[in-house]
Amino acid sequence: MKVQIIETVLKLNDQIAAANRARFRQAGLFAVNLIGSPGCGKTTLLETTLQHLSPRLNIAVIVGDLATARDGQRLGRFCDRVVQINTGKTCHLEAFHVQQALEKLPLDGLDILFIENVGNLICPVGFDLGQDVKVAMFSVSEGDDKPAKHPYLVQEADLLILNKLDLLPYVRFDLDAFRNDILRLKPSASILSVSLAANQGIEAWLTWLEQERQRRRTGS
Amino acid sequence: MKVQIIETVLKLNDQIAAANRARFRQAGLFAVNLIGSPGCGKTTLLETTLQHLSPRLNIAVIVGDLATARDGQRLGRFCDRVVQINTGKTCHLEAFHVQQALEKLPLDGLDILFIENVGNLICPVGFDLGQDVKVAMFSVSEGDDKPAKHPYLVQEADLLILNKLDLLPYVRFDLDAFRNDILRLKPSASILSVSLAANQGIEAWLTWLEQERQRRRTGS
Repeated sequence: MKVQIIETVLKLNDQIAAANRARFRQAGLFAVNLIGSPGCGKTTLLETTLQHLSPRLNIAVIVGDLATARDGQRLGRFCDRVVQINTGKTCHLEAFHVQQALEKLPLDGLDILFIENVGNLICPVGFDLGQDVKVAMFSVSEGDDKPAKHPYLVQEADLLILNKLDLLPYVRFDLDAFRNDILRLKPSASILSVSLAANQGIEAWLTWLEQERQRRRTGS
Repeated sequence: MKVQIIETVLKLNDQIAAANRARFRQAGLFAVNLIGSPGCGKTTLLETTLQHLSPRLNIAVIVGDLATARDGQRLGRFCDRVVQINTGKTCHLEAFHVQQALEKLPLDGLDILFIENVGNLICPVGFDLGQDVKVAMFSVSEGDDKPAKHPYLVQEADLLILNKLDLLPYVRFDLDAFRNDILRLKPSASILSVSLAANQGIEAWLTWLEQERQRRRTGS
């Protein structure tokens, strides 16, 4: 009974996600669904990315949290097209949240749309939003066992980012174990290690983003 | 439609939780539902607690993760009554998970049952497991904005623990802002700050635990 219900919800979600995807294609924009734990650095990654790319690309952000507009306000300092969604008690964004946000977001002339999901490693994975890519984000302070404990996220992600490299001297974290768990789950995985606090690894992320964006635009 | 479905699921959950609670009462044990982000230190808190209390109290642990038996194995070094639940794609423990675990767990002579929920600040809050108390756990490296973004957890928690105090020198974290957000949401909140890595604040946690346990036993 419960499984059947969830399937109905997911089927409706997929229909709306397909409509979102069609709108993104028509507008010629590249859409990124950013998924990670609470506090892994998703908003900080987007702040940094906006500072680097805003001068030459048109970027919008949809950001989800249960409550508060704090992330939206942080991102609004670097971008004039930000929509904050408050999901209440819902632990993930669904395609209809994005659909509603698009009513407030003119897509014309946009190059990239970032969708920062609710901080959660689990349910955001199962809900297609219409994105081109899913980026999974972990951080050193969460421990090296998080990929092994969240296999669906690892398998679904087009890129995995490990943030807070600057904390490595102060916590127990085995980089090889982290990496090996990921590669066992997904041998083709792309992994980037960064420290947003120490401004380390940003160029590799921006390069990946630009390559993926061009690849999707040209359909290669 | 969706709301009605969720209400049905929750109603069934509440019935099973009530049955769990009745069994806990009959066995005279104190049950703790531990909720926190992935990597905030839930398993480490239980490892430390078991080391301190196992000599004089009989303790069991039920631990939930999507995948792997890693936490169960860690806890099994300090406790011979540990049940690991793998929830698959479910982002929280439900009362039936605990009910199933109880089939493998003799309750006779137990003083405390810890239930370590799936790492997630959201859905675990809404599912009663039959516990006596809910303990919410945050960590310094997640940032000081997590209570404000998770008001339901703050309101539902009998105790809030902030872990990883040892990382304060290395990250941006405003202790006053963290505290003030909690007290605005719940003026009567109990907050404990600890560093499990530096063995700091453990006594206050053990004292709280023993006081709550005695209070529930005597019904005062």
